Amino acid sequence: MIDLNADLGEGFGVWKLGDDEALLDVVTSANVACGFHAGDPLTIRRTCAAAVSRGVAVGAQVSYRDLPGFGRRDMDVPPEELRAEILYQLAAVDGIARACGGRVSYVKPHGALYNRIVHDPVQAEALLAAVSDYPAPAPLPVLTLPSSVVHDLAPRYGIPAVAEFFADRTYTPAGTLTSRREAGAVLHDSAEVAARAVRMAADGTVTATDGTELAMRARSICVHGDTPGAVALARAVRDALAGAGLTVGPFA
Amino acid sequence: MIDLNADLGEGFGVWKLGDDEALLDVVTSANVACGFHAGDPLTIRRTCAAAVSRGVAVGAQVSYRDLPGFGRRDMDVPPEELRAEILYQLAAVDGIARACGGRVSYVKPHGALYNRIVHDPVQAEALLAAVSDYPAPAPLPVLTLPSSVVHDLAPRYGIPAVAEFFADRTYTPAGTLTSRREAGAVLHDSAEVAARAVRMAADGTVTATDGTELAMRARSICVHGDTPGAVALARAVRDALAGAGLTVGPFA
Amino acid sequence: MIDLNADLGEGFGVWKLGDDEALLDVVTSANVACGFHAGDPLTIRRTCAAAVSRGVAVGAQVSYRDLPGFGRRDMDVPPEELRAEILYQLAAVDGIARACGGRVSYVKPHGALYNRIVHDPVQAEALLAAVSDYPAPAPLPVLTLPSSVVHDLAPRYGIPAVAEFFADRTYTPAGTLTSRREAGAVLHDSAEVAARAVRMAADGTVTATDGTELAMRARSICVHGDTPGAVALARAVRDALAGAGLTVGPFA
Amino acid sequence: MIDLNADLGEGFGVWKLGDDEALLDVVTSANVACGFHAGDPLTIRRTCAAAVSRGVAVGAQVSYRDLPGFGRRDMDVPPEELRAEILYQLAAVDGIARACGGRVSYVKPHGALYNRIVHDPVQAEALLAAVSDYPAPAPLPVLTLPSSVVHDLAPRYGIPAVAEFFADRTYTPAGTLTSRREAGAVLHDSAEVAARAVRMAADGTVTATDGTELAMRARSICVHGDTPGAVALARAVRDALAGAGLTVGPFA
Repeated sequence: MIDLNADLGEGFGVWKLGDDEALLDVVTSANVACGFHAGDPLTIRRTCAAAVSRGVAVGAQVSYRDLPGFGRRDMDVPPEELRAEILYQLAAVDGIARACGGRVSYVKPHGALYNRIVHDPVQAEALLAAVSDYPAPAPLPVLTLPSSVVHDLAPRYGIPAVAEFFADRTYTPAGTLTSRREAGAVLHDSAEVAARAVRMAADGTVTATDGTELAMRARSICVHGDTPGAVALARAVRDALAGAGLTVGPFA
Repeated sequence: MIDLNADLGEGFGVWKLGDDEALLDVVTSANVACGFHAGDPLTIRRTCAAAVSRGVAVGAQVSYRDLPGFGRRDMDVPPEELRAEILYQLAAVDGIARACGGRVSYVKPHGALYNRIVHDPVQAEALLAAVSDYPAPAPLPVLTLPSSVVHDLAPRYGIPAVAEFFADRTYTPAGTLTSRREAGAVLHDSAEVAARAVRMAADGTVTATDGTELAMRARSICVHGDTPGAVALARAVRDALAGAGLTVGPFA
Repeated sequence: MIDLNADLGEGFGVWKLGDDEALLDVVTSANVACGFHAGDPLTIRRTCAAAVSRGVAVGAQVSYRDLPGFGRRDMDVPPEELRAEILYQLAAVDGIARACGGRVSYVKPHGALYNRIVHDPVQAEALLAAVSDYPAPAPLPVLTLPSSVVHDLAPRYGIPAVAEFFADRTYTPAGTLTSRREAGAVLHDSAEVAARAVRMAADGTVTATDGTELAMRARSICVHGDTPGAVALARAVRDALAGAGLTVGPFA
Repeated sequence: MIDLNADLGEGFGVWKLGDDEALLDVVTSANVACGFHAGDPLTIRRTCAAAVSRGVAVGAQVSYRDLPGFGRRDMDVPPEELRAEILYQLAAVDGIARACGGRVSYVKPHGALYNRIVHDPVQAEALLAAVSDYPAPAPLPVLTLPSSVVHDLAPRYGIPAVAEFFADRTYTPAGTLTSRREAGAVLHDSAEVAARAVRMAADGTVTATDGTELAMRARSICVHGDTPGAVALARAVRDALAGAGLTVGPFA
């Protein structure tokens, strides 16, 4: 069983981003923007309703409070403030998802927050505490990089950390993502991307940039929808996984 | 049994408004700002925690999305948008209240929205639909004026409408509030305000500006905390109610 | 001499709206969003720079403070507040335009504000007062509907009111726009739209929905850029005007 | 000649901060919040008008775009974005000040931005470029710490950097401010604070925490107004400067 997740509901008011309808027909988990980097309440509601109607799992894509920067700018938010902000977002989207007949079943941090808690224990703990605060039926898993501080700290909060894999990104021998500033960091050939997805899902391995074979046991593969050809690439990944006999379904 | 409600948590970030701690020692229901006219997530959390620890009922004080205008400016928000905005606010504050060991037990519209749904059925229905959408253990009551469109429409949505009384405001013979633009609309003498509160709570009557005796059966009395002397006035009302042998407690 | 104006710079952060580059090659006046309904500072700067480099006049498209509603929701903003908000927007965009080697040479109200000041003298005077407050080299003209309260009141503030014409909208016999809720309110045939533009510009007339010939002496024609085919339609209008021997250039 | 500057106009909508009227009777330069960390347009207008009517110089207190955090949270804003944001704020407040019969005569960065450009050349250059972009009658000075990257880089942009002194803060032997996290970082005794102000203004020296005499030639002294007793402290500083025969007046 392997999951495909994507960022969804990232419009705001009159502004749209990505082809949500098309992506929702491909992925099994929808990271729904919660209103802090994108996502007005009506967009959140429509995205949740569309996901629930397709059996796609709803995740809360929590973020810094930064609409002008789309949550991509690192911010020194004090931990008590960040914890309350994440709880607020999670509660808002879960309430809307429940009003739509579903519920939030995982949390995925967005953008600069995602990158920050790879290495910053203070903000990582703020996120984990917020998720732990929220009275869900069971502790909500957090979807994140496997090699990260947040992954390591999650057990202390009773939070399951679920690893995700980026099929269209290359990895260093250390198992981290190659920086986007380096050539070859992002793969565009759909056959190659699909093959890497299958190999990770079937064998639990990925080839690093220097040829090293790395162990990579992720339960979810992240795909994107906001660039031309992105939906087609996501579809190619899904088809390849199914063609290899793997079951594609929500991890949560 | 009579309830005392007040607006609370109406600061934002560094800015404070009113003396929340003092008011929470007087009232039995706290209308907690949800972030759209006031109230950042940390303020919401602290307000909920303070209310829960005192046994004060938590209400979601939902509003138009208008921080610069404090929710006091009438807005033509399309009903589907307004419905989603109210659901978002309600869900966010209920999630935080539950994280604090309580829960939202009623909804009170704020400012311009409060006034609008006295007469506008479209926005009144948007609010009622939002409250009805939210999967609370039981339908949440809406606290509002007894003579109002929202009060009349609430049964259609299975929503209990709970009337509130303004002890420091005068009433017209028609049972509506005297406009603030008219002299004598607001009462400042604490003995007079307290006496009106007791009379409404004990006898279900209030004397209108022309001397007419009006029936007024409200389960909650609204007090304010954002002006000098407001907390003392609220305290005087509570003491007078208790002195008259009435039980002061949450309606919800 | 006839002007073509369009709304530009209506993205916000990561979100884009319309094809600004293509439109700037067609129009002679750019209504630049000022940050209150759309337009972050960097977008404003880029839009001003692109307009200035093409000799396109820069207008400040002032709006209610309403990013979530794109300035399309009517708001009861108190006049002193609205006046200060409009002055703020105008000053910000003019400063940026001057930093780019140009300057703001007119003001166009946006969305709900545009519609409101057609009939509301209080908000119309707030806008006129704001424009009059601003220390421009000469009073800035306001671009608006000819049959409107703001048009009538402008002379009292020493503000030139400049009429605009909507070539793709039909007019009632009273000279007002047919409501978008009625069939046939918007014209889509580019030949027809272009012909109406030429007739208004050359003869000062437009045919109303009942066949009446109306006098219509507008110095600017509004075109749109945010729908598929919009730029092609704008181009068709411009080509037809030029083909009819009319000079297309900024009114301000 | 020595200047006294303070942060002013730091309310937002219904929320107030500090006693602006009282402070404006003491200081000679007003750092006016520009709307990004505080300050709605009407507050900006009233603050500018009040400053201009008293002959107090108006400065643009530019900030990160962060109302929820009052501009106190460090943010990784890309330099082109930051430059446009600062230009926008400066232009808006200068336009309002000019509408009030004055003008912006200097720039002071606020909060986290102030602290960041002490050491970060990228953001420091973004600020300097923005100030340099703005077509003021003469380059606007930037008020900042003397030992700072922004101070060192200012000449490259043709911007005068003006040093300020904190009379109520202690200094390390290196001439930097003692961290607020250390005991004794902030002085509260008004006689001591006033004496330090006089000594710096008259002799150009300040005694560091270890007793070292430091040269400190600042043309402005920063006072605060947002804590109880702050205005009285500012008044004591001003009276002491005047009593020592120093002329208190705007530096810009």
